[in-house]
Amino acid sequence: MPHYDVVVIGCGPAGERAAIQAARAGKQVAVIERQNVVGGTRVNWGTIPSKTLRESALFVHSLTRNKLEGIRCEISDQITVDDFMYRERVVVGRELEIINEALERYSIEVHRGHGRFIDAHTVTLCGPDGAVLSSMTGDVIVIASGSSPNRPPDVPFDAECVFDSNTILRLPRIPRTMLVLGAGVIGVEFASIFAALGVELTLVDTRDRLLPFLDREIVAILERSLGGLGITTLHNERYATVERLAGEQPRVRSTTKTGKIFETDALLHCVGRDGNTTDLNLPAIGLKPNDYGLLQVNEHYQTVLPHIYAVGDVIGYPALASTSMEQGRQAMRHAFNIPGVTSKTELLPFAIYSIPEVSYIGETEERLKERRAEYVTGRGDYDMNPRGQIIGDSEGMLKLLFEVGSLKLVGAHMIGHGASELIHIGQAFLRAGATAPQIAETMYNYPTLSDLYRHAALKALQALQRRNAAGPPVTQ
Amino acid sequence: MPHYDVVVIGCGPAGERAAIQAARAGKQVAVIERQNVVGGTRVNWGTIPSKTLRESALFVHSLTRNKLEGIRCEISDQITVDDFMYRERVVVGRELEIINEALERYSIEVHRGHGRFIDAHTVTLCGPDGAVLSSMTGDVIVIASGSSPNRPPDVPFDAECVFDSNTILRLPRIPRTMLVLGAGVIGVEFASIFAALGVELTLVDTRDRLLPFLDREIVAILERSLGGLGITTLHNERYATVERLAGEQPRVRSTTKTGKIFETDALLHCVGRDGNTTDLNLPAIGLKPNDYGLLQVNEHYQTVLPHIYAVGDVIGYPALASTSMEQGRQAMRHAFNIPGVTSKTELLPFAIYSIPEVSYIGETEERLKERRAEYVTGRGDYDMNPRGQIIGDSEGMLKLLFEVGSLKLVGAHMIGHGASELIHIGQAFLRAGATAPQIAETMYNYPTLSDLYRHAALKALQALQRRNAAGPPVTQ
Repeated sequence: MPHYDVVVIGCGPAGERAAIQAARAGKQVAVIERQNVVGGTRVNWGTIPSKTLRESALFVHSLTRNKLEGIRCEISDQITVDDFMYRERVVVGRELEIINEALERYSIEVHRGHGRFIDAHTVTLCGPDGAVLSSMTGDVIVIASGSSPNRPPDVPFDAECVFDSNTILRLPRIPRTMLVLGAGVIGVEFASIFAALGVELTLVDTRDRLLPFLDREIVAILERSLGGLGITTLHNERYATVERLAGEQPRVRSTTKTGKIFETDALLHCVGRDGNTTDLNLPAIGLKPNDYGLLQVNEHYQTVLPHIYAVGDVIGYPALASTSMEQGRQAMRHAFNIPGVTSKTELLPFAIYSIPEVSYIGETEERLKERRAEYVTGRGDYDMNPRGQIIGDSEGMLKLLFEVGSLKLVGAHMIGHGASELIHIGQAFLRAGATAPQIAETMYNYPTLSDLYRHAALKALQALQRRNAAGPPVTQ
Repeated sequence: MPHYDVVVIGCGPAGERAAIQAARAGKQVAVIERQNVVGGTRVNWGTIPSKTLRESALFVHSLTRNKLEGIRCEISDQITVDDFMYRERVVVGRELEIINEALERYSIEVHRGHGRFIDAHTVTLCGPDGAVLSSMTGDVIVIASGSSPNRPPDVPFDAECVFDSNTILRLPRIPRTMLVLGAGVIGVEFASIFAALGVELTLVDTRDRLLPFLDREIVAILERSLGGLGITTLHNERYATVERLAGEQPRVRSTTKTGKIFETDALLHCVGRDGNTTDLNLPAIGLKPNDYGLLQVNEHYQTVLPHIYAVGDVIGYPALASTSMEQGRQAMRHAFNIPGVTSKTELLPFAIYSIPEVSYIGETEERLKERRAEYVTGRGDYDMNPRGQIIGDSEGMLKLLFEVGSLKLVGAHMIGHGASELIHIGQAFLRAGATAPQIAETMYNYPTLSDLYRHAALKALQALQRRNAAGPPVTQ
């Protein structure tokens, strides 16, 4: 039986980076991957494909919005998701190439199959039918098996007109109507993408407002923008039944708890994701995942068995590609005492790739109020910013939160074009402990959205000045 | 004769902000503006209109690049610049509205006409024919009269087929062929915009490489990208003659010093801009501009007459909208002893809104070599970045320069989509004195171009490690 320093189960972002980190330190590494390709949800089913489709959706949306004389554009009725996914294949191909090159460069062995624990150091490799293909042992084992969409038994998933978030991108054609059940990050992202592609869309949210962890003002703008895309959002609502309707073009009939009835071409169910732990035979080693299949780890990403680490989606929040990669690296640095830079997750930005984009970092007003911190806000509106006007984004906003007293930036919240990128300016300011006057005195390129930072900081200083007439005078 | 605390000559970005700054401090302010509109070159002829046309060019370029099945786009042969400038009118209208609101809010009087000095405290207002309309006196006078394109007498400017950078946007239709004389920032910006709109374009550069103040590697990528847009660039070349050819569709015939002959539908001459000082009657107050019509000032923007300030394009470098606005504010804060935040111009970013965008901040390799500073570089390629792949930008690059020893960031250079915005992340790091390890340990949203900062910082650390085997080990 071959023996390795490390056996990694799953080759998504977390597993891949764990494998490379260990291999770079001279360790013998084997990776077990059940899919025919490496890359995990990030590359193959989730992040990259949906963001690529989003780019096409933005393009199609701009075609209908930028009504330029002299340019005639027609979008065919028969357009398929595949038509939009040409770039996706290029991008996924390129990403896989990069990953495979890295795995090869460090002589990391990739084994195709399911990983299944025999004991705390032995993993068997099984085929899709469960047949044992081989076994291997490892001094250290990394569980990076990812997560899968939750699929309730009363929803007739068929990947033809009833989809989960993994299968939705296999839509044969762009439907005319779609119901999205679940208004979490994934639901909001897909709803806005398909609405921008022209789909008549209804979004069903179990709560009374979207994405309650976001700043309230930002959510209000998001809801207005989604409405502008033609999305109908239902709050405090959930499905009662979902059934397929037979016919030449199959359709879906859904009813809600309050008795509403929808007949749509497609239904996307995206309420929660579960850790991929059922096939790992965890009872053999005494590990017990929670009700959602998630594993618990300590700050070094160790399970209760110190040589077995778990990283990525399988340990739950925040389950972002960026954090998963870093968890993979950190686990291996801990296991083999490898020095190196360690990402600061306390200043982790968060992005929602909806249309429009939303991103934030640091504190929210609600958390500041909870701990009775004194703060002042400053806003910068895209509509007042020349770059915002040029790109025609009239709804975007940057909101900065400063601590009263020190005037230090404590939170940044942004909605609009480029928010997922521009939030990193706020992140750099936050890390540096920058104050409102420092941000206001920074000189930005003109015209840029970045200049909203200066604007918002000045507004905060002006607000403070009004609040406290004895404060230092502030300029335009 | 009415008397004011401040008389401002010119209502571009510099004059406008000077006027508002003084008025906010309770001063009586008059502004003299020779155009029918306020806003200056920034709003009316330069920055905003060209950046708006650029946005349309990017859109048209994406139409031809994103060949999506199912979408048919046709661009008419008869398309005019005006067709692309619909948004420009919206944007300029909105900006003027914002400026006029501000002028009104602070009761700033705007006088239409040319300003002409009678003595060091008296300015007359003249009509376009030179007739004196009225006069006024000011305790403080601000010269913010801007600049105009240099128009050599042997170039037959007609705003029909021979243009300068102020008139080019009045092009009646998109020409098939264009010659751009002058490959400074303005020349490169317009060349790439028109090439992206499908114009067959030749760019004539008097030097042996474009934009010599930029990083050499960035310039090499820029030249390659311009080539990709179909632009032919001639170096070490200048025009000998330019003449209009008669005909139903007028054309331009140009010859170069080395004997090349071009016949094109349009010619854009953009070599240099001169300060607008000839009509100010400066001899009356003993001020003498240099050969380019530019005025010299001290660090407070005072001319040799302490109560006469000069700000904006009329004092030359850097002549950016952002710096001009700040100069206007600073001059008035100095004149009236107004406290307030002062922009740090030592960390001024610079952007070129070509296609692709270029931006940088801080040191260049050449300057570091000159002063024999030890430095290490790290690069991040868009092609290796998932967001870069999604948007299809395969040529972009971020290059970071770190001081050896302290490992502090000292310069950032970027070319590619979003460079003018993303450079501000580098600016915030620079201001904070961030080091390569700190930038490498920052966690960015995924997928984003911002993540190139992490990537480039890691590459720099790896390079350093290779250079100095005794250095601290570095991770992926």
